[in-house]
Parts: sequence; structure tokens; C-alpha cells
Amino acid sequence: MTPGCQVEPRLVEELYINIDPIQAGGRLTGDAIKAVNAYADGYSVCDFCTKPFRLDYIRKPGLDEFHRDLARFVSMDAARVVPGARRGFQAIARTYVEKGDPVLLTSLSHYTEFLAVEESGGVPCEVPAREGNIIMPDAVADTVEEVTRVHQRAPRLMFIEHVDYSYGNVHPVKEIARVLRQYDVMLAYNGAYTVGIMDVDGRDLGADFVVGSGHTSMAAPAPSGILATTSEHQGEVFRTTRVKGDRTGRTFGIKEVEMMGCTLMGSTVIGMMASFPHVQIRVKNFQKECDHANEVALALVSIPGTSIESEMPRKHPLTRVNTTASFDRIAKTHKKKGFFFTTALKERGITGIIPGATRVWKYNTFGLSDRQNSHVATSFRDIAHECGLLQG
Amino acid sequence: MTPGCQVEPRLVEELYINIDPIQAGGRLTGDAIKAVNAYADGYSVCDFCTKPFRLDYIRKPGLDEFHRDLARFVSMDAARVVPGARRGFQAIARTYVEKGDPVLLTSLSHYTEFLAVEESGGVPCEVPAREGNIIMPDAVADTVEEVTRVHQRAPRLMFIEHVDYSYGNVHPVKEIARVLRQYDVMLAYNGAYTVGIMDVDGRDLGADFVVGSGHTSMAAPAPSGILATTSEHQGEVFRTTRVKGDRTGRTFGIKEVEMMGCTLMGSTVIGMMASFPHVQIRVKNFQKECDHANEVALALVSIPGTSIESEMPRKHPLTRVNTTASFDRIAKTHKKKGFFFTTALKERGITGIIPGATRVWKYNTFGLSDRQNSHVATSFRDIAHECGLLQG
Repeated sequence: MTPGCQVEPRLVEELYINIDPIQAGGRLTGDAIKAVNAYADGYSVCDFCTKPFRLDYIRKPGLDEFHRDLARFVSMDAARVVPGARRGFQAIARTYVEKGDPVLLTSLSHYTEFLAVEESGGVPCEVPAREGNIIMPDAVADTVEEVTRVHQRAPRLMFIEHVDYSYGNVHPVKEIARVLRQYDVMLAYNGAYTVGIMDVDGRDLGADFVVGSGHTSMAAPAPSGILATTSEHQGEVFRTTRVKGDRTGRTFGIKEVEMMGCTLMGSTVIGMMASFPHVQIRVKNFQKECDHANEVALALVSIPGTSIESEMPRKHPLTRVNTTASFDRIAKTHKKKGFFFTTALKERGITGIIPGATRVWKYNTFGLSDRQNSHVATSFRDIAHECGLLQG
Repeated sequence: MTPGCQVEPRLVEELYINIDPIQAGGRLTGDAIKAVNAYADGYSVCDFCTKPFRLDYIRKPGLDEFHRDLARFVSMDAARVVPGARRGFQAIARTYVEKGDPVLLTSLSHYTEFLAVEESGGVPCEVPAREGNIIMPDAVADTVEEVTRVHQRAPRLMFIEHVDYSYGNVHPVKEIARVLRQYDVMLAYNGAYTVGIMDVDGRDLGADFVVGSGHTSMAAPAPSGILATTSEHQGEVFRTTRVKGDRTGRTFGIKEVEMMGCTLMGSTVIGMMASFPHVQIRVKNFQKECDHANEVALALVSIPGTSIESEMPRKHPLTRVNTTASFDRIAKTHKKKGFFFTTALKERGITGIIPGATRVWKYNTFGLSDRQNSHVATSFRDIAHECGLLQG
């Protein structure tokens, strides 16, 4: 009567050094794994949910304090947990974007921001990145003016990645916020690759909203994330329900419309919470992560024909590299084709790069120890040696 | 440097028989706990995500097959996993409801349906329950006509619970669907308390959409759920993105707008999947669950002054009982007040009733063994004996 578990266990983190570009910051801490175990059941955090019956009021476990800590962590006034950063974008777009409204994104925006704007009926308008793939404040100003001309109305909102998913470049959000303020455009800060990785001071940056991803950068299970805002906007994006049953006269207390009531019951929120003390510490050690990224990047560029497409020196461990004129040259005649490269890495205990990729690919050294990081750097050079790209 | 885990382990399921009304069906299976452990990291199911880069296409682990199985499980044509049933309601409402549109709910609708309608700018119109707290087809017909008169347009959509959260009553969805079809109103079936608990045949019931809750009734971590639909509506509620970067010309493949791209990466979807073989079996044994519910209900009504407010005999294990004229009479003079009752239950190894509740409260016997169930039934009578409500 009892069917067997059909899910093969995953052992990536146990057996390999994982440099997957999107996975590094989401890897659970030991404490999170323990907590997830103890709170795996759906409504586990709801045992002591009493009036006013909302997730961020629960005291045991201390979700109320955790919500306050989260807001403080990004220097905003209020925070909620959400099922992934994308649900944060959605809540913002659904609150402020009406059909036909232009919304500023950038040429490096993640697709989830596009979907959030699309779902709200808005029109995404990209600010183009300048050379070096950086979004510059003057380009933002130009785009605001052009969009206003074309759409006959000013954009009300801009989504901007502090660190983009494509290059891992750091964009001058603070300067962009200053420009936006002049045009009265709100700034939604996409911290999917920053919140939980590096220090984020939303107030100092001038953000109206800070969105973070639990499973990308806060060592938490998926789907999880945060949406934080200022006291000015809190009553808008976290507005409570005003609907009423027309027959019963029922109202629904202080449930928040865009949150759809409670968001992360159980293992997702508890995993976030258990990792949080570690996350608060690791953001302080961010320089080490940059040093690691640079060590690996320099090892890669020392291989003739290899270039780093991300800004150098690296200011974030998510890095994009071009090996079309190095490893891909080898792949062209190798019997394993591009797989020779990922196989060679795997033999050295390294995983996380798209199998077969030898042209433009990404890696992320976040969270590696010094030794692991040196091993990654050395391994790239070793493989280059083996296939004749490096001599001596 | 390493902070301790501040989360106290939860031992409710290990130490007690848990009859919490909302938790019983969400309790994880052993296989789910193991799978959650192995896939706790955020993007763990994404290791082998290749073109077209969407969750329901991933083959290892077999998410593609799981999605097809889910659709078949509820006899619909297509299914997606979503972060909780509420996000399914939201996707439906966002697809079909425009500002000012009347949407049918019922006087027993869950607040998340109200929020979904509110978020879309719709106007919720309740179908009143008839005596015995059942939503009858003729009341649906009357309400459609009245709403059409008042709003000058016909409702396009009705949300209906097959089993409501308040009484655990079974409503005649099939007959209601027949009425709705005459008025060309789509039916969104809320299976938060049925999908994963009892057999649900969406096609036979005449549902246009079937929504289920993973953490309420499918032994899965939160937030999780499913949204299934027919081939007729699949292109609407699961429509793919059409947005385009105005500068870059980027498009975003087959990401689905209402899903916001991928939904449940990692432990949530894997937990659902690992429990699924068990869930498929348990829905076939639903009669046993009803027998258990009736055993406990009959024990309760044998205590003078006690009445079951849910329909009798029980057709679902979620049950609402009124002990105002029995246990609450004792509470009035007891030094522990209402807590005497939940304390007495706890001494007998039973938990899950709101602490202090002695008037109207709910319990759910789902998933108990025969022995556990008899123990619950006996315990209620024992406590009644002890406090003099039962003689002999």
C-alpha cells in the first residue's frame, strides 16, 4: 500500500563545489535545513496564530520580530515575506500600474519584472545600458523624458536591479534614485542578487521599495522573498482589505490585498528565519566574496582568448565570461564537444555551469571557502593547460 | 561567528494527535520530509532546466510528468503548481475580472477568494447558503439573475468551495455547474479541502478551473497548490508573455504571465511530488475518513448540550461543533476557564483545537488511525464524564 518515494536524492552540494550562477546565494545554512525539517508541515508556524490572524503578528515562532528585523536589515520601515521576489514586483505593479501606464525597466531587467508590468497592463520601457553594461543616471533621465513625450504621461515607477542577473554588474542606484526623484518617479529596487549577499541600505539608496529573493540570496527555501517599503508607501502596497460580503456583511480584518492574506506559512518562512542570523553576518564579509570573484576572474583572463564580460574588477561574485576564443575553440574539435569542459570541471569536483557551455557562460563564487575558491581558479587554468590553451 | 539557530523545534505531530482543522491534510508524508531535505536549496529542481526554461518542462526530477499527473488527478487538461490555492484564485481573477465586474462567491467563501476579486477590481456577490449551510443551485440561479439586474451585466465567474472551511459541508457543485452553464458563468472550483483528500473529477463536476492547496490537503510544504483547467481556458489563464523589450527587442519565451514565470522551485514542489503517490491512494480511502468523522461527531452529540453544526452524517472530516451548552457551561466556573478543555485534551495527547475554545470550534480527524480516532472520540466523552456532563 505504501508507494516508494520516486524522487532521487539530490547531492549536488554534498559532492561538488557548486558555482551555479543563480544557486550560490540560496544554498541553505545548516540551521535552515534543521528548521525546515522541524517545520515542514504546511501550517506549522500557525499553531499559535491568534488575533489579528496575520502571519507577521505570530509570536511563536517569532515571525513578528523577524518581520521587523527584515525591515531594519534593508533600512526600510516595513517588510513582508513573499513567495519569491517576483511576487514582490507583482504587488508593486498591481498597486501602482494602470492599463497603458509606461513603467521604466532597463535593458538588463529580469523577465519577472517584465511579467509584473505586463500582468498589470503597463508598458515596459527599457533604459538602455551604456558601454560596459551599466545603467547610467543620464540614460535614466533621457528615457524618462522620451517616455513622457511618447506616452503623453510620465512614468510613475522604475524597477532597477542593483546587481543584474546577466553580468553581475553593480549599477549606480543611488544616483539613479536622485534623478528619479526629480521626475517624481518611484524606485523599486530589485535586490535579488544583493539582499542577503551584501549590505543594502534602502533608505540611503533612495529606494521606495526593496525586493529581495530568499531562495536566490538569503539561504532560504523556495519560493521566498521580501518586499520592504517606506512608511510613505506602506499603506498603499500593504493596504488592507476593504471588501465586504454583500449578504453576510463579513469583512476580513487586516488581511493585506496584495499579499493575498498570509504568504509563507511553514518551511519557507522558517528557513528564511533560521538562516537570517547567518545572512546578517555574511553581508559584512562581502569584500571577501569580491576578492574570491576577482581571483577566479583573473585566472580566467590569464587564459589566452578569454575575456570577462562583467565589469572588472569584480564587485559581485556573479560573473559572465566569454571563452569563445579559448575553450570553445577546443570544443569545436573535441569528441565530447562543449561537454569536455564541464566534464573536466566535474572531474575536479566543480559543478554549476550549464553542461556543454563553452562560449558565454556565468558562474558565481559566492560562499566558497578560500581553498575551494583557489581550487576553482586553479582548475580553470589546469584545464586550459591540458587542452593546450596555456603553455609552460 | 556562527549564531545559534533561534528556532525552537516543533514537535506537535511527534507528541500529539493533531486534530487542527486546517493542518490535518497538509501534514507531510515521510517521503515528503525526506525529499524536502534533499531538495531544500532554492533552485534545487533547476539543475537540469534546459530549453524552453520552464518549471513544468523539467525532466529531472520529473516535474513534467508530475504536472501531467496532476491534471489527470483532477480530470482536467492542464495543471500548474502555484504558491498556494490563493495564488490560483488570483490568476483566475486577474485573467477574467475587470474593474467593476460582479463575481459570484458564496456566504461560505474563504477570504482569499474575496481578496482575489478585490485585487482585480471586481465586486464580490455572495450566494446565500440555505438552511443547513449548504449552497443550493436555485440560490445560485437567483443570485445570477439578481446580480445581472443590479450590475447591468452578468457575472462571468463564480468561485465555489466543494467543501467549505467553515462547516466542512459538501456543496452540490455538479448541480451548481449545470445552472451556471445555462447563464454562461464559468466555475472556479475551490478544492482546498478536497483535492488530495477525496476523489475530485473536475470534468465530471463541470468545473472550468480546479484549485487545490498543497499545504492544506496534499501533504505538501507551504506555500503550494495547484491550478488546473480545461483545454478551452488553458490559453487564457496560462497565456504566455507577449511583452517585448522596446530597446533590446527581447522576448521571454513561453513564460506564463499569471504564473509570473516559474512558481515552486525547490522543496515545495518536490514535497508535493513525493507525497503525491500517497495522496493518490488516500483519496480512494476517503470513506474511512468519513466513518472516523462520524464516530467522533456521534461521541460529541452524545454529550448533553452538544450539537454538531456541520451537516450530519459527516461527509468530510472537517467538522464544526457547538459546546456552548456543555463544555462552555463548565468553563464559566472553572478556574482555568475555557482552557480546562484544551488542557484536558492535551493530557490525553490531543491537540489542535484553539486554546480556550469551548463554544463553537472545529476539528479535523483526517489521517488518524482507527485507534487514534477512537481515542479522540472516547476522550471527549471522558472529559464530559469528569466534569459531570455525562453520568454513569
